[in-house]
Amino acid sequence: MALSFTTHAFDRESQARRGTITTRHGTIETPVFMPVGTRATVTGLDPIDVTALGAKIILANTYHLMLRPGPELFRRVGGIHNFMRWSGPVLTDSGGYQIFSLSEDRTISEKGARFRSYVDQRMHLLSPESSIEIQTAIGSDIMMVLDECVDSRSDEATTRAAMERTHRWALRSLAARTQLTSGSTQQALFAIVQGGVLPALRTESAAFLTQHPFDGFALGGLAVGDTRSQREDITHFAAELLPRDRPRYLMGVGTPPDLLYAMLAGIDMFDCVLPTHLGWQGTGFTSTGRVRITRGPNVTADIPLDAACACSTCARFSRAYLHHLFKCSEPLGPRLLSIHNLHHYQALMAEARAAIEAGNYAQYARQKLDAIDRHEHSDKRLGREPASDVKS
Amino acid sequence: MALSFTTHAFDRESQARRGTITTRHGTIETPVFMPVGTRATVTGLDPIDVTALGAKIILANTYHLMLRPGPELFRRVGGIHNFMRWSGPVLTDSGGYQIFSLSEDRTISEKGARFRSYVDQRMHLLSPESSIEIQTAIGSDIMMVLDECVDSRSDEATTRAAMERTHRWALRSLAARTQLTSGSTQQALFAIVQGGVLPALRTESAAFLTQHPFDGFALGGLAVGDTRSQREDITHFAAELLPRDRPRYLMGVGTPPDLLYAMLAGIDMFDCVLPTHLGWQGTGFTSTGRVRITRGPNVTADIPLDAACACSTCARFSRAYLHHLFKCSEPLGPRLLSIHNLHHYQALMAEARAAIEAGNYAQYARQKLDAIDRHEHSDKRLGREPASDVKS
Repeated sequence: MALSFTTHAFDRESQARRGTITTRHGTIETPVFMPVGTRATVTGLDPIDVTALGAKIILANTYHLMLRPGPELFRRVGGIHNFMRWSGPVLTDSGGYQIFSLSEDRTISEKGARFRSYVDQRMHLLSPESSIEIQTAIGSDIMMVLDECVDSRSDEATTRAAMERTHRWALRSLAARTQLTSGSTQQALFAIVQGGVLPALRTESAAFLTQHPFDGFALGGLAVGDTRSQREDITHFAAELLPRDRPRYLMGVGTPPDLLYAMLAGIDMFDCVLPTHLGWQGTGFTSTGRVRITRGPNVTADIPLDAACACSTCARFSRAYLHHLFKCSEPLGPRLLSIHNLHHYQALMAEARAAIEAGNYAQYARQKLDAIDRHEHSDKRLGREPASDVKS
Repeated sequence: MALSFTTHAFDRESQARRGTITTRHGTIETPVFMPVGTRATVTGLDPIDVTALGAKIILANTYHLMLRPGPELFRRVGGIHNFMRWSGPVLTDSGGYQIFSLSEDRTISEKGARFRSYVDQRMHLLSPESSIEIQTAIGSDIMMVLDECVDSRSDEATTRAAMERTHRWALRSLAARTQLTSGSTQQALFAIVQGGVLPALRTESAAFLTQHPFDGFALGGLAVGDTRSQREDITHFAAELLPRDRPRYLMGVGTPPDLLYAMLAGIDMFDCVLPTHLGWQGTGFTSTGRVRITRGPNVTADIPLDAACACSTCARFSRAYLHHLFKCSEPLGPRLLSIHNLHHYQALMAEARAAIEAGNYAQYARQKLDAIDRHEHSDKRLGREPASDVKS
């Protein structure tokens, strides 16, 4: 078995659950947030930093890594763990989302996606089989099937066609894994449920995919044009359709409220570029809402970014210093803010896990969501970024 | 006394010496290399990283810090140590070099330098008195007098005029410090010997300045148009003119050969942006010469940047990974290379101090210089950067 999953505590009032995923590179306590290391690096952070933050698993991206440094290099150096010196589990996204978000110079057919490389300008093919082959070379602990992702606002026919192709590609991915490893793989493979914001299609997609021996199931095709409430409704609807004995992964959706809602639905795994992406842009998540560090009031603020935060940035540096670093374009600024933001996410997940264990997660989530809503409404200066803008 | 300096070992065949500088923020073993933290940050590194590298003192810059965040903020937060969370000694350069290197929109008069701020486009005055006032607000352990720096290729009259003004400004700086602190300062003040590459002027400058109670003496006006051999000759000539009981600081000169030669002359302190500057550009100093990590052969090189190096970068990462990070413009790349380069410098200085203690520094320096020359000649792909291009 490439992966095992056990659940050992359940919330009293919601579907939230505490589990443990075991991979060959270590165990992961769920629900878990996975920092994004698209190009085999969590931007600006050393693996030592990521470990110090308490993160147990990171995400990397097949699409970007196939172009640079390429699968041949991964074969040569013995996979991503050696390459980037991360000894914990790695999940690789298949590249399906990146193909979707490339608007130019790509053709999707039954075979796969042909696209022009931004590295060498040559045409490449990403097929279900080649995605698995590349993910095998990368050596991730959890691979994702190649899926066809469409805008959530697409019509039913388009959404259905993409979903059905995703199903065919999922089976081809499963077969490719078996063939590549003669059936003895140590790399898990997750399927991706599609179907947009249409419950009937989500039902059909889950019913189809859960007949096959995938190690886990993801919800894809969200945060791509849908509203927050559509996203929440579909997440709750679709999570119920997934087997209880396999991890459930909500792909690329990840403001703190998104996480809190989705855990109510029984989602176990999350990834999102927001904490690092906003960190590099100068925005910090705090216990009293988001803070843009470059804003005027921070110039002279000799207080931490978040007085309630225990991270190494807040324990030592003032807003005034962080402001100074950003104003000078000094790379220590984004680094310190990314560390803070990832700590904020890790702390949120640790609190959530504790609340589930205590059986009072629903109550915890309501209080936390209310507090966030209060802060976000009292601070109109910074709108919510559309999550679809910040996928990697 | 704001600073004490003791020497406790001398090389047998050269002027090299081992000393200890004691400041209110700790002691420094000399000869010492000071990482450059121009804007109250060693680019991309946390003070924890700088400490882990073994660096005991860092350099910051009055000119840049007066413009951003400004002296008022330093007064408010209690100085640079609190602001950037660096608990060790700090030396602040006065801004003299920056005024020199600003070619536009500045007028130098007896009063000081008027220049336009790159931050708010307003005119500012940096005078000997205001430089000391700002350095007092910054709270550095070692302040530098404001000097007038000219190109080494200037004619004698120009060089003499700048030197004489530097002398008058040095006395005004000394008076300003006494006045600001009622004579009870805890901040040391170093004078700067000028006189270009003209031995007679250097003699005159040293003779004048060493009559006054400065805590140390620097050689300024080098690496500003002079050749390497001119720089070496003048450094050896001028170092001899400085009192044996005060630290000698060679400003802004700092390839490894520069350091090795200058230590032969009895120089105690160095700073240079090269290790961080080249690190951010993708060039690493190694025991077998400089390496540009983006060059082709590194694409697949599953070997450390420098197999002989004990830094945390070389202990873990391959050239192929560093190459990948630079090709992807991932900020972990410059960070890892800066850490390596600063480690390279710190290791060089530690070796040099040990060789002085053993009394065989001259022999050590000759072997090291020969090895560097061999590597630099065998590797024509990368020329030496003119040091004047890389001052901050």
